[in-house]
Amino acid sequence: MHKLSGWDDTIVALATPPGVGAIGVLRLSGPEAFKIVNGIFPSKNLTNQLSHTIHVGLLQLGDENIDEVVISLFKGPRSYTGEDVIEIGCHGSPYIQQQVIGACIQGGARLARPGEFTQRAFLRGKLDLTQAEAVVDLIASNTAASQKAALNNIRGGFSNVLKTVREQLIGFSAMIELELDFSQEDVEFADRKKFNSLIEAALATTDHLLNSFRLGNVIKNGVNVAIIGKPNAGKSTLLNSLLNENRAIVSEIPGTTRDTIEEILNIRGILYRLIDTAGIRDHSTDAIELVGIGKSMEKMQSADIILYIFDLNELDRAKLAEISSEFEKSGKRYILVGNKVDSMSGLSIREKFSAAGDIVLISAKNKIGIDEVKNGLFSRIVDGQLAVENVVITNLRHFEALQQVHKSLMDIKTGVDNIISADLLALDIRRCLHYISEITGDISNEDVLDFIFSKFCIGK
Amino acid sequence: MHKLSGWDDTIVALATPPGVGAIGVLRLSGPEAFKIVNGIFPSKNLTNQLSHTIHVGLLQLGDENIDEVVISLFKGPRSYTGEDVIEIGCHGSPYIQQQVIGACIQGGARLARPGEFTQRAFLRGKLDLTQAEAVVDLIASNTAASQKAALNNIRGGFSNVLKTVREQLIGFSAMIELELDFSQEDVEFADRKKFNSLIEAALATTDHLLNSFRLGNVIKNGVNVAIIGKPNAGKSTLLNSLLNENRAIVSEIPGTTRDTIEEILNIRGILYRLIDTAGIRDHSTDAIELVGIGKSMEKMQSADIILYIFDLNELDRAKLAEISSEFEKSGKRYILVGNKVDSMSGLSIREKFSAAGDIVLISAKNKIGIDEVKNGLFSRIVDGQLAVENVVITNLRHFEALQQVHKSLMDIKTGVDNIISADLLALDIRRCLHYISEITGDISNEDVLDFIFSKFCIGK
Repeated sequence: MHKLSGWDDTIVALATPPGVGAIGVLRLSGPEAFKIVNGIFPSKNLTNQLSHTIHVGLLQLGDENIDEVVISLFKGPRSYTGEDVIEIGCHGSPYIQQQVIGACIQGGARLARPGEFTQRAFLRGKLDLTQAEAVVDLIASNTAASQKAALNNIRGGFSNVLKTVREQLIGFSAMIELELDFSQEDVEFADRKKFNSLIEAALATTDHLLNSFRLGNVIKNGVNVAIIGKPNAGKSTLLNSLLNENRAIVSEIPGTTRDTIEEILNIRGILYRLIDTAGIRDHSTDAIELVGIGKSMEKMQSADIILYIFDLNELDRAKLAEISSEFEKSGKRYILVGNKVDSMSGLSIREKFSAAGDIVLISAKNKIGIDEVKNGLFSRIVDGQLAVENVVITNLRHFEALQQVHKSLMDIKTGVDNIISADLLALDIRRCLHYISEITGDISNEDVLDFIFSKFCIGK
Repeated sequence: MHKLSGWDDTIVALATPPGVGAIGVLRLSGPEAFKIVNGIFPSKNLTNQLSHTIHVGLLQLGDENIDEVVISLFKGPRSYTGEDVIEIGCHGSPYIQQQVIGACIQGGARLARPGEFTQRAFLRGKLDLTQAEAVVDLIASNTAASQKAALNNIRGGFSNVLKTVREQLIGFSAMIELELDFSQEDVEFADRKKFNSLIEAALATTDHLLNSFRLGNVIKNGVNVAIIGKPNAGKSTLLNSLLNENRAIVSEIPGTTRDTIEEILNIRGILYRLIDTAGIRDHSTDAIELVGIGKSMEKMQSADIILYIFDLNELDRAKLAEISSEFEKSGKRYILVGNKVDSMSGLSIREKFSAAGDIVLISAKNKIGIDEVKNGLFSRIVDGQLAVENVVITNLRHFEALQQVHKSLMDIKTGVDNIISADLLALDIRRCLHYISEITGDISNEDVLDFIFSKFCIGK
């Protein structure tokens, strides 16, 4: 399946984050792993030990004691990479870790490239490419949703769905081939109706996956929310109310400048970045006041959702309708939030704003309706429950390849509808299978693989 | 031996450095460790598994998948703490690590205090106090020497020497006790000569340990070197020559201000901090020129070694003698380095400077004699080879307690010399044994222990 030449040496790397800690773990993988560690671990011959056992002892380079270590043995193929793997748990001193890595290299190991352990797992057939890519996502995951989506894909969730599509295609293909065999006799063995239902099923599955990317992208990259409104509309109070109730998960994103400080709000597993539009407040609020929202919109281009907050006492129905029609035209998702609900009677609000669109009524100050704002933010992104239990596409590469799969399926469908010849249909099917194989990595070129694995950290 | 109440719960902490990495390792220790992990690891019952085995599977909290993990089992007392210990290797996402810790806490574990794993190892008798303290030193070690000294002490090097002293004392004590039993009869059973030789042996061992602290302190904390000399003497060229040859291990210490940038030079496992005295150059060089070195000395108080560099063409024997006698008076260790050796004949140098003291002759520019400067720096600190294989005291607490041991031994010796009564001698012996027990932690108070272990990182 894959070229394995050039992958027959033994690699070593630090697998835990760099820096001082209680312990650090180094990982070796390859045919010489046991030999190399035996050379620096005189206490016992590790080759004679069972896989999945732990051995404590002194690591020595020649006469020099390096460290007292805990060694974990994984004999291939029962290991992460499928090769012989040894993990060395040493004391968490960067100096000692360097010494141990140095000793392994002296014994014949080579420093692993970023992602090389996972790349080997892929090459040895322990993971397909989508599972390997999910490893990066899992390590980077910072919410329940991103962690679930990645873990689901590591466990083969996405691969299994692709397998379904492939099986549907192959079933279809088998019928076509049958027809081809008898093409001389002009007999139509394959039932066109069955054809159609198979191809429809494959299309439906692909559609479903493609649609999941909108959510997947949000899960992976979060949602940008611009809160706009006049200064006295209660923008900052709302921001605080939204954040106060989640103090534990509020944080500033380091490295951002003061002009664009973002506050992070986690709503049921989705990260919302509440973008502080302080810098554009002076322009935007005047502009919005004049319903000349175009210029502010430009600045809010990066926002996925616009949260427009206004004082219920100040705006009237006509103006609000004008504003929301501007939002509609912009194509952006938005939420209208009417503040200071506790300063008016329900009746007068209804009279003032009836038919002016959906307004979330709140009191930012008295924390009325804050949950409704959150529900609004959530429902603008997720339809119904956040069902990450289903397979969700979070990876742009997968999305783009799936679009190709979808396109080929449509070509096949058109072919079937137009009763094109079976050999032409077979070509379309092969093209479609090719794109699926590119996603799972059954077909891949070195450059693509190198690019994918270069995004990994060293030691994974 | 130690109070074990309050230590019977199960603790959990991240053992690897915080941050994103390929993997992270969490550690649990305590009687409930297996029960707690069984509650989140449905694949198999870990209690039925052998100690020192590894188990791969899915971690779940209720219906939620948390991560695919690698679990290492250590059944007490065959573990770091002596209690049941489980290590959970999970993906290196801080979010996931938090989830796993959260799940363990929900299962009944408590977050470990800094150093609590090692403190438990100490309380359960797996390590004595000097070994526990060496764990911190090992994690902080950044040179071969500091690593060796710490590892040696973890392996009980210091404890064994102390055991020797204790045995010598107890042997002595046994003879005294014998004498006490028969004191009524005024018979002197214990042979005074044997007394003397035992107490001399204990004193010699203690002396040896106390002397090792000079080196131990240097190994742990490095050596400050002030390079002084006139600007044209070649100071900065020498600095570069010293560092150029060690480019790989040169670094600036972060956090130091520009005024006091230190360059680090590793000479055979000892770290030398070459202090850039640029800030005091204007004063000092004039001052040295005038042999008014006092004021500069003040500024160089923190230096362990003064490296004085001069141009062989500029200084004469008398002036050099004056300068070195100033250094002698200051009590500081120093090296005289005569630069531009390649601009004069050997004969004229000998004639000019004979009997002016040891001069290291170099050409900073042409890198002649640089190794001799290093040898000089090394020999000012280490007598002969750097024999870290021997036990070296690196810990101030140990040094101070050992001084008490030494003092009590001297008291005993004086007592023996002055033929004081056996019961008084026995008191001195008990005092001496008390100080030894304080070092090893056989006698300790909670405050001291808490202070020692609070210096650990969490997870160790």
